[in-house]
Amino acid sequence: MLRVAVAGASGYIGGELLRLLLGHPEVEVAAATSTRYAGRRVDTAHPNLRGTTDLTFIAPGDLGAYDVLFLATPHRETMDRMGEFLAMAPHVIDLTGDFRLRDQDTYAAYYGVRHSAPELLGTFTTGLPELYREDLREADRVSVPGCMATAAILALYPLADAGLLEGEVTVDARTGSSGSGISAGAANLHAERSGAMRVFAPTRHRHEAEITQATGVPVRMNATGVEAVRGVQILARVRLAGDTGERTVRAAYRERYGHEPFVRVVAQRRGLYRLPEPKILSGSNFCDVGFAVAEDAPQALVVGALDNLVKGGAGNAVQSMNIRYGWPEQTGLGFTGLHPN
Amino acid sequence: MLRVAVAGASGYIGGELLRLLLGHPEVEVAAATSTRYAGRRVDTAHPNLRGTTDLTFIAPGDLGAYDVLFLATPHRETMDRMGEFLAMAPHVIDLTGDFRLRDQDTYAAYYGVRHSAPELLGTFTTGLPELYREDLREADRVSVPGCMATAAILALYPLADAGLLEGEVTVDARTGSSGSGISAGAANLHAERSGAMRVFAPTRHRHEAEITQATGVPVRMNATGVEAVRGVQILARVRLAGDTGERTVRAAYRERYGHEPFVRVVAQRRGLYRLPEPKILSGSNFCDVGFAVAEDAPQALVVGALDNLVKGGAGNAVQSMNIRYGWPEQTGLGFTGLHPN
Amino acid sequence: MLRVAVAGASGYIGGELLRLLLGHPEVEVAAATSTRYAGRRVDTAHPNLRGTTDLTFIAPGDLGAYDVLFLATPHRETMDRMGEFLAMAPHVIDLTGDFRLRDQDTYAAYYGVRHSAPELLGTFTTGLPELYREDLREADRVSVPGCMATAAILALYPLADAGLLEGEVTVDARTGSSGSGISAGAANLHAERSGAMRVFAPTRHRHEAEITQATGVPVRMNATGVEAVRGVQILARVRLAGDTGERTVRAAYRERYGHEPFVRVVAQRRGLYRLPEPKILSGSNFCDVGFAVAEDAPQALVVGALDNLVKGGAGNAVQSMNIRYGWPEQTGLGFTGLHPN
Amino acid sequence: MLRVAVAGASGYIGGELLRLLLGHPEVEVAAATSTRYAGRRVDTAHPNLRGTTDLTFIAPGDLGAYDVLFLATPHRETMDRMGEFLAMAPHVIDLTGDFRLRDQDTYAAYYGVRHSAPELLGTFTTGLPELYREDLREADRVSVPGCMATAAILALYPLADAGLLEGEVTVDARTGSSGSGISAGAANLHAERSGAMRVFAPTRHRHEAEITQATGVPVRMNATGVEAVRGVQILARVRLAGDTGERTVRAAYRERYGHEPFVRVVAQRRGLYRLPEPKILSGSNFCDVGFAVAEDAPQALVVGALDNLVKGGAGNAVQSMNIRYGWPEQTGLGFTGLHPN
Repeated sequence: MLRVAVAGASGYIGGELLRLLLGHPEVEVAAATSTRYAGRRVDTAHPNLRGTTDLTFIAPGDLGAYDVLFLATPHRETMDRMGEFLAMAPHVIDLTGDFRLRDQDTYAAYYGVRHSAPELLGTFTTGLPELYREDLREADRVSVPGCMATAAILALYPLADAGLLEGEVTVDARTGSSGSGISAGAANLHAERSGAMRVFAPTRHRHEAEITQATGVPVRMNATGVEAVRGVQILARVRLAGDTGERTVRAAYRERYGHEPFVRVVAQRRGLYRLPEPKILSGSNFCDVGFAVAEDAPQALVVGALDNLVKGGAGNAVQSMNIRYGWPEQTGLGFTGLHPN
Repeated sequence: MLRVAVAGASGYIGGELLRLLLGHPEVEVAAATSTRYAGRRVDTAHPNLRGTTDLTFIAPGDLGAYDVLFLATPHRETMDRMGEFLAMAPHVIDLTGDFRLRDQDTYAAYYGVRHSAPELLGTFTTGLPELYREDLREADRVSVPGCMATAAILALYPLADAGLLEGEVTVDARTGSSGSGISAGAANLHAERSGAMRVFAPTRHRHEAEITQATGVPVRMNATGVEAVRGVQILARVRLAGDTGERTVRAAYRERYGHEPFVRVVAQRRGLYRLPEPKILSGSNFCDVGFAVAEDAPQALVVGALDNLVKGGAGNAVQSMNIRYGWPEQTGLGFTGLHPN
Repeated sequence: MLRVAVAGASGYIGGELLRLLLGHPEVEVAAATSTRYAGRRVDTAHPNLRGTTDLTFIAPGDLGAYDVLFLATPHRETMDRMGEFLAMAPHVIDLTGDFRLRDQDTYAAYYGVRHSAPELLGTFTTGLPELYREDLREADRVSVPGCMATAAILALYPLADAGLLEGEVTVDARTGSSGSGISAGAANLHAERSGAMRVFAPTRHRHEAEITQATGVPVRMNATGVEAVRGVQILARVRLAGDTGERTVRAAYRERYGHEPFVRVVAQRRGLYRLPEPKILSGSNFCDVGFAVAEDAPQALVVGALDNLVKGGAGNAVQSMNIRYGWPEQTGLGFTGLHPN
Repeated sequence: MLRVAVAGASGYIGGELLRLLLGHPEVEVAAATSTRYAGRRVDTAHPNLRGTTDLTFIAPGDLGAYDVLFLATPHRETMDRMGEFLAMAPHVIDLTGDFRLRDQDTYAAYYGVRHSAPELLGTFTTGLPELYREDLREADRVSVPGCMATAAILALYPLADAGLLEGEVTVDARTGSSGSGISAGAANLHAERSGAMRVFAPTRHRHEAEITQATGVPVRMNATGVEAVRGVQILARVRLAGDTGERTVRAAYRERYGHEPFVRVVAQRRGLYRLPEPKILSGSNFCDVGFAVAEDAPQALVVGALDNLVKGGAGNAVQSMNIRYGWPEQTGLGFTGLHPN
């Protein structure tokens, strides 16, 4: 059994890591840190884990040495402490935003601050198995991409990679409230957030840079908070190269994802769930991707959906770990999602 | 035009008072206070009032003299400052919990602190027109009852008053999130509160004492937060005296509320809305009350529903004001509610 | 008092017309038809109207003569019966989709059937006061635009009219469930529709044609059902002409809507409600419009929001009637909307 | 591998059975019937199973012989066909209401029709492991109790069994919309059901009889539909015998459920989840039970929560099967539930 630890384990991403790792047959959760909950039971913060674990949070300063260290610590603080974290475990999987972009100028442009450990930026492999599986087999440092970025990258990649896209892509992202985290403030009060359609990033959402970095496609992205706790959906409008039709598009998706365990191509002509819908993905590690090609113009609407805390975070991290150790990729990630939900 | 002011106007009850008073043809809103928003436009805190008013919040210390002063200030702080408030206006309408109970020992038992102005407790008239209309015609000091208490009192009163109840009544209350106010903390984060059925007061909810005070009936009450922003519903189980049947029960409600402008008796045998449902009451000043009498025992389930911010707060306050000044009771309270909603 | 009638009054749009007309001081609701509910009280279908009216539905065949006839009848059936309707009242206001497009070929292309009364298509004035106020003063036949189209037209018009737009506009629309109507089937079952992000029209939504007809701008539109009962929000990505900056954009909106009673320009730099949000518009006749101009390119995101049953339907109809009879436009439309909600 | 079949597999309970059985390591799903979907893929009805199975629905008439047959067929139809079903498999697990009550008069009183196979009523064992584990080890015919009944029975049983209850118990049940099934009609339209607090059974809910049958306690039960897709919560008010205090109550629960894999005692003094809350149970087989004892009277509020489709249906069925075949009870039921959700 590998000994793993989660730093920043009392937040939503940390809790999801614990849920997945506690159910993973190949690892033992040796430690979970929380500044606020140190000394208290893990199920105080994560009531879904009652009966599953007797683990107690430790203070961040009490971390020791582990085989794998997962980081769900606050943004910015993580880059400051990365040297420290790297000394604790040979294998570090970072779920924060700090090491997602490889270029420090792009980081500064999107995050508004200078990166405090720019020399490490290029040393992380992106924790997105569908694009970087081979690299992940030997990667000791992994940076898991953002939740909306993951949905957009997986939805766009087959077309981008096949050279079927032209010009700038616009991405419209919708997200549930758990993406704001457990320390969200008054803006996420139920009375204000319930039933909302809150355009919180009308231009220049940070995930733009990640999508472009992974797909090579120039992107414009906006984001809206809608009524959901979990779930991200992205809609991307793309221009198709030449006379690309639906058949070519479908073939590109099938070819790319036909053997992927966690990407499903959903583009049906009828039914209630004919395009990707996050509602049925809660708790699962699936990213559903789909498309609709315009009949009268070389354009398509591309759709991606996932659970932001699983395939958009903790699930990608665990899948990356599974790859690194040669375990079946689905290990610990077998939950299918619920319908209805 | 009467000059009215609202103290504590940036919260949810304060905002609802402003909405109703700004649309009231007989009054002018002369001042609205907010510690946090002083100097900023009222529509900063209450975006629904954009285009309706150019009013700016003032600091609490800048209050002057008015014809009517509405208090939506914090609990406890209000009793400490009541002397001050009473000097500012000949007519004070308090929407906090501080002057709802007339007995200081009961107050201490339910609120856990001693009352700081016990000599004033008996000087307030309860702002519930259906029970205290005659008193309200001349009342200079009004205390509006709690939202759940209002629903329960109005639902139980016809039976209590007709002597049809026996023994202790149990009240099961369900409430939306706006009842927790704008300064609610992490407990009301959308991700935690959405879709919840949170039993936050399994025994001894404070409103018990108000219900007993108004109806004379001993009450046991629990309360659960359910998914809604606005809306309170209470279910009360009662034992009926002697051989009281459905006909007698219905007659008691009809007689009591047949001429009330804001209480509707809803007890139908079919349809989706056969018993009171808060969903269609948002924004309206109605309290719907209904009942179902058991066929095999002298028991009934009594149901009440209202919008906690309107009939459960600001609407009752405005209706009480209308009575005091001899205006038609519906003045400024004409909104019917929406269906669907 | 004008005598008005509503045909198709048991549906959601019909119910909203009744709500607004029953509260309108200048008209009397003389008749409301329903095939299904004929002979039953109006408040059976619309429980929010309990206590407001004793009106009973009549069968469609029992309609007589009225001053104004509102049509909330089924699509397609309305065009077949329009001759009949026009004979019943000198002033007909149609809320269906049948007479929104002026060109019969466009109608056929978007609706998939041939129009059955093409000779009447050009005789209707669009019931959108902000664009057609002068025409509406004398219009005897009015066709109210679609809910999503209304939001998009009002959001785009100031830029289109000022010549600030270039090329094709893409519109991303989000809508609540009430837009599917009361006769929606299993697709709108709560368990399936709750919390959904259902892309039901990935390409070629019908409202495209209406938006282009009103603004002259070529449009690509998709639509998604999200969690809400009422409410439509549209996001439009536009390319700006030349070196149009934020100041010019803001000026265009201010100039166009500075004196409109029901359009508010919402484009703020901070706050929870800095861009249009339908959540606070339920029941109100406001359409909020806003924008965010990109800093690094001649592009903008334009946002519009409204209550689909009010400004996206019944409210526009009543506002159009008010204009026709010279009454203040806000008559009967004074409800501000709720916060929180 | 045991060969199992699900009759009535396109509904919500049927879908949940498929989800659990497809993930169960000891069984093979040999058949799933659906009148409506026969010949179509199972994932057409249950999109969460995409990628998990290639199974196709068969017509009910095409059922063969299996080791275990699960029945999620319509109420009433099931009792008519039970003879037929019993001939198909040595082990039949019925999830309908038809064989839950052992007494035919009670059945007639609560269901309003005479039972068509009364001779079979006494031959079924109740599929509730916590009460009937020993019987289930050898039971060939199992009837799974109703969802609300399960929550109430598990919440009340420790007190009833220890003789701590006096008099009649009142049960207030709240349920999500999935309990109405996939063939629910207009009453479950999203626009009508969303945010509802619909008291649909104010007196004499059918599950009363099941609760009394299992616990021996006389029960009065009402039920309300609240906003949730999955989830049942019951609140029971009980009178405690003699001078029973909190310690005795807690001990009774601990003793009864200390070793149960799927019942957790949740009765904490602080935290957001101090009493059972269905929100965090979706997809899991847990039933959480808790209590709050009044300080001033021998009374308590007892609370139970579960996912109506899992522990309130399909999960209990699978757990009963596990017991019958001697597999670990948690086999195939390991999902913990999500937080937040």
